Amino acid sequence: SFRCSVPWLILLLQALLLLRSFLGFPAVRDTYSSSDSYPEFQDVNHMVIFGFGFFLMVLRRYGFSSTGFNFLLVVLGVQCSMLAEDLLVFLREGQNEVGLESLARAFVSVTAVVISTGAVLGRANPVQLIVMTLVEIIFFYVSRYINETFLEVQEHLTGMHVFLFGAYFGLALASRFPEAPPGLDKNRSTPKSELFSVLGTVFVWVFWPSFNSILPSFKTRAVINTYLALAVSAVAAFMLSALTSKDGKFRMAQIRSAVLAGGVTISYTAERIHHPWIAMILGLLGTGITILGSHCVQRCFNPALKLQDTSGVHFTFGLPAVLGAVAAVVLLVVEDGIDTRWNELSRLGYDAFVYIAAFCQTISTALITGLITGLILNIKLLKAVHVSKYFDDQFYWEVSFKIISD
Amino acid sequence: SFRCSVPWLILLLQALLLLRSFLGFPAVRDTYSSSDSYPEFQDVNHMVIFGFGFFLMVLRRYGFSSTGFNFLLVVLGVQCSMLAEDLLVFLREGQNEVGLESLARAFVSVTAVVISTGAVLGRANPVQLIVMTLVEIIFFYVSRYINETFLEVQEHLTGMHVFLFGAYFGLALASRFPEAPPGLDKNRSTPKSELFSVLGTVFVWVFWPSFNSILPSFKTRAVINTYLALAVSAVAAFMLSALTSKDGKFRMAQIRSAVLAGGVTISYTAERIHHPWIAMILGLLGTGITILGSHCVQRCFNPALKLQDTSGVHFTFGLPAVLGAVAAVVLLVVEDGIDTRWNELSRLGYDAFVYIAAFCQTISTALITGLITGLILNIKLLKAVHVSKYFDDQFYWEVSFKIISD
Amino acid sequence: SFRCSVPWLILLLQALLLLRSFLGFPAVRDTYSSSDSYPEFQDVNHMVIFGFGFFLMVLRRYGFSSTGFNFLLVVLGVQCSMLAEDLLVFLREGQNEVGLESLARAFVSVTAVVISTGAVLGRANPVQLIVMTLVEIIFFYVSRYINETFLEVQEHLTGMHVFLFGAYFGLALASRFPEAPPGLDKNRSTPKSELFSVLGTVFVWVFWPSFNSILPSFKTRAVINTYLALAVSAVAAFMLSALTSKDGKFRMAQIRSAVLAGGVTISYTAERIHHPWIAMILGLLGTGITILGSHCVQRCFNPALKLQDTSGVHFTFGLPAVLGAVAAVVLLVVEDGIDTRWNELSRLGYDAFVYIAAFCQTISTALITGLITGLILNIKLLKAVHVSKYFDDQFYWEVSFKIISD
Repeated sequence: SFRCSVPWLILLLQALLLLRSFLGFPAVRDTYSSSDSYPEFQDVNHMVIFGFGFFLMVLRRYGFSSTGFNFLLVVLGVQCSMLAEDLLVFLREGQNEVGLESLARAFVSVTAVVISTGAVLGRANPVQLIVMTLVEIIFFYVSRYINETFLEVQEHLTGMHVFLFGAYFGLALASRFPEAPPGLDKNRSTPKSELFSVLGTVFVWVFWPSFNSILPSFKTRAVINTYLALAVSAVAAFMLSALTSKDGKFRMAQIRSAVLAGGVTISYTAERIHHPWIAMILGLLGTGITILGSHCVQRCFNPALKLQDTSGVHFTFGLPAVLGAVAAVVLLVVEDGIDTRWNELSRLGYDAFVYIAAFCQTISTALITGLITGLILNIKLLKAVHVSKYFDDQFYWEVSFKIISD
Repeated sequence: SFRCSVPWLILLLQALLLLRSFLGFPAVRDTYSSSDSYPEFQDVNHMVIFGFGFFLMVLRRYGFSSTGFNFLLVVLGVQCSMLAEDLLVFLREGQNEVGLESLARAFVSVTAVVISTGAVLGRANPVQLIVMTLVEIIFFYVSRYINETFLEVQEHLTGMHVFLFGAYFGLALASRFPEAPPGLDKNRSTPKSELFSVLGTVFVWVFWPSFNSILPSFKTRAVINTYLALAVSAVAAFMLSALTSKDGKFRMAQIRSAVLAGGVTISYTAERIHHPWIAMILGLLGTGITILGSHCVQRCFNPALKLQDTSGVHFTFGLPAVLGAVAAVVLLVVEDGIDTRWNELSRLGYDAFVYIAAFCQTISTALITGLITGLILNIKLLKAVHVSKYFDDQFYWEVSFKIISD
Repeated sequence: SFRCSVPWLILLLQALLLLRSFLGFPAVRDTYSSSDSYPEFQDVNHMVIFGFGFFLMVLRRYGFSSTGFNFLLVVLGVQCSMLAEDLLVFLREGQNEVGLESLARAFVSVTAVVISTGAVLGRANPVQLIVMTLVEIIFFYVSRYINETFLEVQEHLTGMHVFLFGAYFGLALASRFPEAPPGLDKNRSTPKSELFSVLGTVFVWVFWPSFNSILPSFKTRAVINTYLALAVSAVAAFMLSALTSKDGKFRMAQIRSAVLAGGVTISYTAERIHHPWIAMILGLLGTGITILGSHCVQRCFNPALKLQDTSGVHFTFGLPAVLGAVAAVVLLVVEDGIDTRWNELSRLGYDAFVYIAAFCQTISTALITGLITGLILNIKLLKAVHVSKYFDDQFYWEVSFKIISD
């Protein structure tokens, strides 16, 4: 059974991380540096571990695995990210110290893994998820390194590609997993699981300004713009959910996805927007694309590609991130274009080209590596879960009591 | 049905807010100012969205609406408050910038709406709630403007009138809504809904020191005094709950209200108290008035006035706020009275008069405008909910599963 | 019935605290001092009240009491601790002011009470718990005073003995309570209660770096080392849980205990470790001792001593704390030993002796005073609960609805 290999795989990975840290890891920093901000650090920690863990707790028989595996993947992923981060800094500027900043950047990167997990939620076993974590972190850092070195994109912008990368990596990965049979009853939520998921969503929503402001330099502006985008996004989520349902009722699952869209959309531009109304418009557009996207994706795109995206990461994180990237280019052209003289136009064009190139590079790397990872994860050696065992806590957890249900 | 008008009303309101922000909203501030305190800001954000959202989740079939509508009203209300705040500052000192401070003040003001919602919880439909939010925010700012301009009350004290205003506005409003029939079974809590409510209450309790310290200048003193008042309040809540029940058992619903009383009572005076024992006594008195008030109000006052106050905002927020206002006057007279010479007595009397006048103005504005709003909300156009649909998630939410219950 | 005496006991205690505070309590500090750190303060507040409250919510019919009594004991305990703290500072340096720092230190001390409660969870009535809180706080401060005065241990290290003291006090106490009959059905968890407990555990886990960094001076180092230890601890918890179960399944109850072990183990040394790999190894060892300990303790130790430890505080907090104390001595000897000349060896030996003496003094004080307290709590006057009423909310809470269950 695959279950016997789980602890050994974890042990191997943790031993490697320990060995690497023993051989060459930098020392721990003594004092606060000016760029360390403990409250934001703690908020992002909370958001990734608790917020996303409970956000994913939608399936009625999959509560333990949703939070438990999310926890395991985050703590493994953060350690991998710290090493990758360390390597990246070493390549760039020689030696480094471990400060709150490097931990914070590791949290941001590990969000890609959390998002990808959402796409295969309940269908991948822990062995597959752990391998995925390792592979995805490596490829995400490769993609960041290309962006930073060859395209000279600013560091905090490459970090914000995390939503784009996570969503499309997850999608490409999910396309290689067998579909759950349509009649499966476990693929549902109950009001209880839905309430826990609302709890997680609210945490993610509340801490999003910290997430968007942890890397940039103009922190206050990033916080305020993100908050405004999120607020308009939440209002629009309720509006569009009622508009698009048959009899004007709200749909909780839709609202949960859509309230977060504003935060994703504004992630690239939060620190650069000077006028609140731009942030508000971006939040509105983000929710619009999520709600409309959820209809298109679920009715046309996914059935056509025989793709199953358990918690809808495509429209929750993927589409708003694409919109955000487009908005970043438009804002750059409009804002800088106004006071640019003729002979500087080529400079502006170059800047816009860099943004677009970084976007294309990230999304294509995500899709290709996701597809390859999906193929690798479904080889016989890793003993993929049979579809009848999908979405079931009892397959992974020893329980002396009834599993959460009706 | 009223349901068709919900999204259009939200759209209209959001479009107005966007337009206003496009036309004249000030720019976003770049850097932290000394008065910005991000952790407190985040705490209050969390308290209002998450804490109060789950605090209100008492009714067994109304979990989604409690959190969901609270979320919607807060994000709409914060945007309205920011505009009102902006207008107020503009009237006072010309131009303004959007900083964390203005957002924090908007959070404080929107608490009035959250409290009023508690009084009509489960009986008002979303259209009524949205109109209420808009009207209440406007009247609260009018009341604050009167206090600040004509009575020259300090700004952070007028902000703290939010509990008084919210509770009595909500009560006056609730008196215009038809009563739920006495045999209605949905008007109950279950242990599960009660536990979620405890979860929210604990969040509100923990973050209350941040709420009371976000506006004043002596932040540490406000934090410590609020914490002490809350601690004594919680101890007294357990004590009085056991004392007033038949067989010495605790009552969770009562304790949930009473642990918060200390925070409300001390809100006016938190930054001015120098001796811990005064804060502790205020916490004790606050809980006392809440527990005794809950007996009087529920047995005599409400039945006599045919008033239904779903989550007991009268004794949870109203009575402790009245006590706090009285305590503020007494403290002013006693503290300043001791080292005041004869010829300064008139000055002291004037100060006390201002406090009392501001209190009377706030409470009467709340009652009158609440009553008028209640009358407006129950006209035929807004299609009030029929009493048989009270307290029911299924009326507002599309659910493919059983609604949370037994 | 004992229930009639609960409110009077609380009243008496609160009146004494008020009187003491009226007679000689120092004034509240006006401004932030450099050692005050509001975000950490708030995190620890949240962790103690909310995190541990929900962490303890494992028993299926004991949800209200777990959180409710934890809340009551913390708010009472914090007030007692502040007075004890005040007395300690007064003995050391004369006058004192109440600042955030003294409140934070009170939170740390009250954790001992929270841990001890876990050992007798569901078997002690509120009267017994309140008396225990008072007695335990006093003895913990006596033990700290001995460590600080006679052994000259640094202040923040004596604070960290809280896990050791709490666990062994609780164990000695629990040995004096009659065992629950083996067939009792209420002594179980359900998936729902387990999920709430996971929620609490995640909060405790996330806020642990704040707990370990609130007292020491090198805060950043303490945060980073604690985070690394916790991360490795969580990874190892999943690994060992799968390894030690029959068919490779995870066990939630075990994982909940084991993810916290890293935080306990590193509590003594978090600010002194310079190399991340040492912190990671400590996290790994902590989890190892917790998981192995849970097997030994539950199968051999507890049955042999006829001891019942409801929520397993022995292996969750006790054993990792012992390991942490050993690690502190080893680190001291190794780190200082390397660059010590021959004539300084006696100095090193003395330092190591002091650490060991403080450890022995703390653990023996905890065991002896715990045993005595356990004997006192089970005299007839305090009317101990009959075993048939163990683990039951309905015995303490007035409920108009079914108590949380299946």
